[in-house]
Amino acid sequence: MRGRTDLAVEMREDISKDNQMRGVHVLTKNHGDTDIKEIRIVVENEEGAMCLGKPIGTYITLESEGLRTYDDGYHKPMMEVLSKQLQQFIGNKKKIMVAGLGNREVTPDALGPYVIDNLYVTRHLLKEGIIKESIEISAIAPGVMAQTGMEACAILKALVKEVKPELLIVIDALAARESDRLNKTIQLADTGIIPGSGVGNHRNAINKESVGVPVLAIGVPTVIAVPTIVNDAMDVMVHALGKQTTKNVLKKFTDEERYQLACEMVTPYLENMFVTPKDIDEAVKRISYTISEAINHAAFAS
Amino acid sequence: MRGRTDLAVEMREDISKDNQMRGVHVLTKNHGDTDIKEIRIVVENEEGAMCLGKPIGTYITLESEGLRTYDDGYHKPMMEVLSKQLQQFIGNKKKIMVAGLGNREVTPDALGPYVIDNLYVTRHLLKEGIIKESIEISAIAPGVMAQTGMEACAILKALVKEVKPELLIVIDALAARESDRLNKTIQLADTGIIPGSGVGNHRNAINKESVGVPVLAIGVPTVIAVPTIVNDAMDVMVHALGKQTTKNVLKKFTDEERYQLACEMVTPYLENMFVTPKDIDEAVKRISYTISEAINHAAFAS
Amino acid sequence: MRGRTDLAVEMREDISKDNQMRGVHVLTKNHGDTDIKEIRIVVENEEGAMCLGKPIGTYITLESEGLRTYDDGYHKPMMEVLSKQLQQFIGNKKKIMVAGLGNREVTPDALGPYVIDNLYVTRHLLKEGIIKESIEISAIAPGVMAQTGMEACAILKALVKEVKPELLIVIDALAARESDRLNKTIQLADTGIIPGSGVGNHRNAINKESVGVPVLAIGVPTVIAVPTIVNDAMDVMVHALGKQTTKNVLKKFTDEERYQLACEMVTPYLENMFVTPKDIDEAVKRISYTISEAINHAAFAS
Amino acid sequence: MRGRTDLAVEMREDISKDNQMRGVHVLTKNHGDTDIKEIRIVVENEEGAMCLGKPIGTYITLESEGLRTYDDGYHKPMMEVLSKQLQQFIGNKKKIMVAGLGNREVTPDALGPYVIDNLYVTRHLLKEGIIKESIEISAIAPGVMAQTGMEACAILKALVKEVKPELLIVIDALAARESDRLNKTIQLADTGIIPGSGVGNHRNAINKESVGVPVLAIGVPTVIAVPTIVNDAMDVMVHALGKQTTKNVLKKFTDEERYQLACEMVTPYLENMFVTPKDIDEAVKRISYTISEAINHAAFAS
Repeated sequence: MRGRTDLAVEMREDISKDNQMRGVHVLTKNHGDTDIKEIRIVVENEEGAMCLGKPIGTYITLESEGLRTYDDGYHKPMMEVLSKQLQQFIGNKKKIMVAGLGNREVTPDALGPYVIDNLYVTRHLLKEGIIKESIEISAIAPGVMAQTGMEACAILKALVKEVKPELLIVIDALAARESDRLNKTIQLADTGIIPGSGVGNHRNAINKESVGVPVLAIGVPTVIAVPTIVNDAMDVMVHALGKQTTKNVLKKFTDEERYQLACEMVTPYLENMFVTPKDIDEAVKRISYTISEAINHAAFAS
Repeated sequence: MRGRTDLAVEMREDISKDNQMRGVHVLTKNHGDTDIKEIRIVVENEEGAMCLGKPIGTYITLESEGLRTYDDGYHKPMMEVLSKQLQQFIGNKKKIMVAGLGNREVTPDALGPYVIDNLYVTRHLLKEGIIKESIEISAIAPGVMAQTGMEACAILKALVKEVKPELLIVIDALAARESDRLNKTIQLADTGIIPGSGVGNHRNAINKESVGVPVLAIGVPTVIAVPTIVNDAMDVMVHALGKQTTKNVLKKFTDEERYQLACEMVTPYLENMFVTPKDIDEAVKRISYTISEAINHAAFAS
Repeated sequence: MRGRTDLAVEMREDISKDNQMRGVHVLTKNHGDTDIKEIRIVVENEEGAMCLGKPIGTYITLESEGLRTYDDGYHKPMMEVLSKQLQQFIGNKKKIMVAGLGNREVTPDALGPYVIDNLYVTRHLLKEGIIKESIEISAIAPGVMAQTGMEACAILKALVKEVKPELLIVIDALAARESDRLNKTIQLADTGIIPGSGVGNHRNAINKESVGVPVLAIGVPTVIAVPTIVNDAMDVMVHALGKQTTKNVLKKFTDEERYQLACEMVTPYLENMFVTPKDIDEAVKRISYTISEAINHAAFAS
Repeated sequence: MRGRTDLAVEMREDISKDNQMRGVHVLTKNHGDTDIKEIRIVVENEEGAMCLGKPIGTYITLESEGLRTYDDGYHKPMMEVLSKQLQQFIGNKKKIMVAGLGNREVTPDALGPYVIDNLYVTRHLLKEGIIKESIEISAIAPGVMAQTGMEACAILKALVKEVKPELLIVIDALAARESDRLNKTIQLADTGIIPGSGVGNHRNAINKESVGVPVLAIGVPTVIAVPTIVNDAMDVMVHALGKQTTKNVLKKFTDEERYQLACEMVTPYLENMFVTPKDIDEAVKRISYTISEAINHAAFAS
């Protein structure tokens, strides 16, 4: 209700500040002497799914200040923690397809395609007998609907049918609600990707139902939707009115009335826009490299 | 006061809806059977400069819906109108340097570098005697301070000293106040570039005083600053309160009080962010091509 | 025999300098007052296919010096001639998929992906009812096997099954034998793409048999294979020996003996290399734009 | 004489297979348990310079198979060895400018610009007081003459005058003679860059004389010149004739006569072309990352 987000951790905050939600388990963990915080949200049943607004499944969020700031040492710890998480999802699967969603030409949406650029792909090497006894990795950056005229989901469904992987890993840029979360959070979800995420419109859920194999989604919030910014501004305004004037009329508005206001504030133009940091180029390059190295490591370093 | 803008037309709207400003002349013109509208604002003296908040000089704005929508026929009319405007500024100058400001890696800020990519550069061909009797064009995309550690202004000053052009044309992405103006407006100004514009921070004015030769600035608004969005939202909110409630407390706030509110609404994080349309990649490619062709045409087609 | 080429016109030259080949018809035509030359080679039957070394079908070559040199006026005539040729192939087909083969990251191989960047894609707009009564265009840049682990042919087969176009247009960079033909020739072939072409190894023929719908291939030679260069050098050498020495031993070698020499001259390393002009970046940008505009024009301007 | 090369190690091989050259000292060293081989050639006086065909100065070549092959562990050892070499050149200098020469749009020539993309630049941070007591790094990718109309040397001279660094590090793609050396060799030279190198024509030496401060050049061979390939082919041919025929006429040619042949074999078109490996995209990305990390490490990790 407080602005669109693709992050399970932000959805949880909306509903409850404590951990008492039926059907939703939350575990928090700090990784050793790194600054990496892991929040694991397990939606156990339909009641939990209704409550959180996310399908049944596991959502892991890794947070690190180091991901956002320039720091020579940021890369390795996050890569290793992420790699270990991936290994749990991969298990003993031997054929994996990786899909980098998003638009290579729009900086905050280029995260997925950039991950593909640095992957160690082996399917053709195995087929030609150049290497043996390796995990089979195939990869694709399907582009966005405005470029291809096809939904990413349709492209992936067709390729899965052809290549028959045991697991599809999809990487995508997400929208967050808090600017503070951008470019320092990585979310893993074994439920696939919920439609309408991030910068563009990739439409149609990409999950086990739609593509036919288990889908692991890796997402990084790189943008905020404009209505979210407006909603936040309204919050601050209500707050400000309370502090600076004796009349705090607005405080008496119901949530519904405030929501109506927010709707009027977003003109049709603004709905097709997004908000992103000025240093988004460096952030996307850095994080995509960390993710591709984590996938390489999870697949081949064991 | 109503949100930061780099467009003279938007600054004028703030102050006066009619054309009665001392020291500021405004001329509006429609270009024949095209959809191109030209607004020429001439700041004639210090009084006008104070009033408009822009230095003494000429500001020409070309507006066209066609620049924003996909339209096979958009390109040529705008290219020709822009080319004619450029020829007036170029006059009989024979040595021109073109600088594409901005960050090639951040989509809405890549306008300047993209223009450089399509320019017809001749300086080296003239020096080597490969062509003769042509206008001398040199070009540079100096990058942004986060990439180079140097202000664009310092780089251009050094190159102007070395190459000695008679005119420096700088192209940059701008910030607008109205989302409706993005990607359909081209502004020409013979006063150079005012610091702090657009997506990044290129700092330090680039004008005749700082680089030593006349500077013609070509700018296209591709982003909106986040505080502007918040300011706009507040406007709509005030409006909404008036319509939907009987209490219109907020309406009694002075402009100053409202400005204080807006300041509190923008957290430090949000100040380093920008708002841009989702189809910014196509818009920047298309408009940069129109500008580079207009420069090529203005320099060589006469 | 004289070095690998993907161009039907070069293969014809090998066999016969005149037009007398059984099963192969050749028509040459100059386009009005442009510098565009059209060579139409029709392979009519198996005898012709054996003779030319190309499958039964039609091969149209458009040649223009203007494609290679910078020339403000080059684009439009070639675009129009190419567009007309495309219209003949398209006929009254209403669903077209366009595939840009090659590696976006290797300049002379980026031709196909660049064409996709500038296409007017409509499939999603039709599906969502935003436009009506238009040709349906979908598009994909499938990447190369080293990036995806999948053959381009397998990706396209899967997508054709999903999207069901009536025609697949594939664009690819080709290898020529004569450096003189690079970046000034466009070849159309209704036989699809023969495997092992151009810069990379896309493997497996993409044609009606393999993907299930008619395939129109648009190819532009942008590279020369290294063995071709060596073969050419040997030719010159033989020539030179004849002129500069009284002993012309080498002249007495049979074609077979000379071929053996050429084989020894190409070390394994060199086989994985290619030869390309230093100004390949501008050439690929320019020609890809001409092709995408010709496709847009052929599909929508009628 | 055996084909153009920018590598001192290849020039030495031409003249003498042993280490007995007057005025030229050669030291070879293996780096511990890595596969990195270091060859240090010191040209001590004019006699040595005449002999080797390179100016007086120090040329260090680092060679590693790992640089070329995909190998998770290649990066760190080479980065560390290179970083130590750089530290010797940097000494206690506190202001460094780094220039990435070459054309970002032509894959094998993009090495220099890519290095700039990953550098940790500090000049602006120091100027604004955001960081303190750090080495001052500024950086520029000046582009090539066909894009700017200006020689890279002229641009750098102008910027050095403005920024006043104590050391200029230039990175450029080089031409090698042996295909076997491509993408596995890094050359450091304290003599600057000799004109006419690599893919493009950056003209005019960039050295202490021309820019006014010491110049350290980092070069990586990514291309071979076409005449070199032809020369090599001729060698093999002579060899082949000796083996396969009883007449070995060609063997009796003098070096001069063979050189005359080679000249005739290179047509004007081919001179403007270059030879490069098909996997050049990955190689350039990987090596540029190693170099930028080595510079970052040398400047900040002490």
